[in-house]
Amino acid sequence: MTMRGYRAVTPTNFNNETMKGVAARVVIGSGDGAQNFFMRIFEIAPGGYTPRHVHDWEHEMFIHSGNGECYHDGQWHPLKPGDVVFMPALEEHQLRNTGNEVFVLVCLVPSKAPEL
Amino acid sequence: MTMRGYRAVTPTNFNNETMKGVAARVVIGSGDGAQNFFMRIFEIAPGGYTPRHVHDWEHEMFIHSGNGECYHDGQWHPLKPGDVVFMPALEEHQLRNTGNEVFVLVCLVPSKAPEL
Repeated sequence: MTMRGYRAVTPTNFNNETMKGVAARVVIGSGDGAQNFFMRIFEIAPGGYTPRHVHDWEHEMFIHSGNGECYHDGQWHPLKPGDVVFMPALEEHQLRNTGNEVFVLVCLVPSKAPEL
Repeated sequence: MTMRGYRAVTPTNFNNETMKGVAARVVIGSGDGAQNFFMRIFEIAPGGYTPRHVHDWEHEMFIHSGNGECYHDGQWHPLKPGDVVFMPALEEHQLRNTGNEVFVLVCLVPSKAPEL
């Protein structure tokens, strides 16, 4: 068994033209013995965003804290704590923080995807 | 894409000798097109608990709110918001609420498991 506070994992920080103010952590991965799917936690700073992209695996997301939006099919959709998102493979998407505090979400991918 | 507040899903309530004060929801399942893993959310009322059991699939869990404990290998381990747990297949476990508010956790299983 693995049990940890997610902040115990060293984050990978992204700040470039496609991804801004993002601290990303693999909190359950192959190193823990996970074989079927992986859990990552993203902290997106106020004004920050993930890349707008498409890939051939799905996301299952849970919003833990803060407020943001998810881009899909030409529109931005609001997200708040307790919301869940199933983003199927091959559908373009992006996340951004629209609030004044850190936007924290859990994002899972199948094991065929890169862990991060 | 599916996007919803988790409370929009009708819960299944458990109150019996092995599982007390638990409201369980499949928030991302096969009905959403998920093929590899499923997301469930459990609300455990103060004093409530899940069954102590073993099964041949893993759990990946994230604690959203409240305070509780996870039983594993003869001990109870404290859990608070932001904690994650990887419970491998075939390891006995149980969860309980040790606080005064609802203990809310996200619990994912591979698609070989029952959705709930």
